[in-house]
Amino acid sequence: MAADTAEERIASLGLDVPDFVRDGYYGGGFGTMKPYHLSGSLLFLSGHVPRTNKGIVHPGRLGRNVTVKQGYEAARVTGLNVLAGIRQAVGSLERVTSIVRSLNFVVCTEDFTEVHKVSSGMSDLFVEVFGPERGLGGRATIGVMALANGHCFETWVTVEVA
Amino acid sequence: MAADTAEERIASLGLDVPDFVRDGYYGGGFGTMKPYHLSGSLLFLSGHVPRTNKGIVHPGRLGRNVTVKQGYEAARVTGLNVLAGIRQAVGSLERVTSIVRSLNFVVCTEDFTEVHKVSSGMSDLFVEVFGPERGLGGRATIGVMALANGHCFETWVTVEVA
Amino acid sequence: MAADTAEERIASLGLDVPDFVRDGYYGGGFGTMKPYHLSGSLLFLSGHVPRTNKGIVHPGRLGRNVTVKQGYEAARVTGLNVLAGIRQAVGSLERVTSIVRSLNFVVCTEDFTEVHKVSSGMSDLFVEVFGPERGLGGRATIGVMALANGHCFETWVTVEVA
Repeated sequence: MAADTAEERIASLGLDVPDFVRDGYYGGGFGTMKPYHLSGSLLFLSGHVPRTNKGIVHPGRLGRNVTVKQGYEAARVTGLNVLAGIRQAVGSLERVTSIVRSLNFVVCTEDFTEVHKVSSGMSDLFVEVFGPERGLGGRATIGVMALANGHCFETWVTVEVA
Repeated sequence: MAADTAEERIASLGLDVPDFVRDGYYGGGFGTMKPYHLSGSLLFLSGHVPRTNKGIVHPGRLGRNVTVKQGYEAARVTGLNVLAGIRQAVGSLERVTSIVRSLNFVVCTEDFTEVHKVSSGMSDLFVEVFGPERGLGGRATIGVMALANGHCFETWVTVEVA
Repeated sequence: MAADTAEERIASLGLDVPDFVRDGYYGGGFGTMKPYHLSGSLLFLSGHVPRTNKGIVHPGRLGRNVTVKQGYEAARVTGLNVLAGIRQAVGSLERVTSIVRSLNFVVCTEDFTEVHKVSSGMSDLFVEVFGPERGLGGRATIGVMALANGHCFETWVTVEVA
């Protein structure tokens, strides 16, 4: 019953992971950058944001016009883009040994104190897809002033691959 | 007279380093994450904050209701948690070859320009404990909008271990 | 006609790269830190800011009193300091295999949505100096509350070296 591989879990969960090999990494539109760098077994990904081909998911500011639930959803969508970025970089999610660490950015107000609850939208997804042993990564989350184009969330992920 | 090892220095300085092996890493309460990831000789720690078993040290905002001296103290307490995290990850502080780099976050007002003075509370501690050769790390410090639960400081540290 | 090496490109472009070997890394004035850490082929640099021996370039806040064009210039000056830091760390820019990734911080207002356009001042420089294959790095850019001494930009770079 339990799906064994990350790709099987994505299928059984019905997750909609974009195809950056076919469509390209959206980050190129943000300036002079590449989507990732692979050095030995460490995969360093560029920033990922809650963006789909339909637009930006829940733009705005936590504590003002984006709820924690919406922020959580935005972080989950961001996680799907991270999965797309890993596939683009190393071909298959099965090569992932572990999520190393993510640094997460939440656009919020001064008095918002729940930035960590937003990031769990992404890290819960990683555990669903990779299982707890490979999917649970180190983490920190920072409330920031602003992100490009009004995104409410961005992540900066390092992954270990075989 | 001079204490030779990090553990001896901790004893001679009378530092109160928590025990994450016994008590667990507090970060689990913040969401889906693990305390660290070790990849080869690089130890990637999750975020650490100025929190003890008595509560949060100097919550608030630099430039408003937390002084530079208080921020420095909060960063020093954060450093004790980092030491606890290193012990939890690799068993002994003697395995530390070098502090690689820390990225530090200070909750502050728009016109606060001394974020770097806060971080030295942590980096001074590392030099006291490991000595200048191993304890001096690369560093950057950023003034941010907010952190989880009103903490005024958070760090994101990478360590090299033998 | 095309200059072949990074050092030749710096000469042909007439770039003014500081000499940290002679003058020291300016970051020491910000607190207890070292300029870089080299671990295997990964060079982890401390924070770099838009500072020359004449002072801070375009201090202030994007969206208020620093234009995108000025921010771009500040990021380019920051990139010159990064080049100086790489030279200090490994002796020659020819040892650079690739810019791995940069995390960039832009001091801005809440409604500023073009933080990415600022960072391109630095990443465009890297491509000019190293060429696209080695000079194009991963990237993310965050709008922040404040940086030390009123700088409008700071970067946190990882480089791969041979």
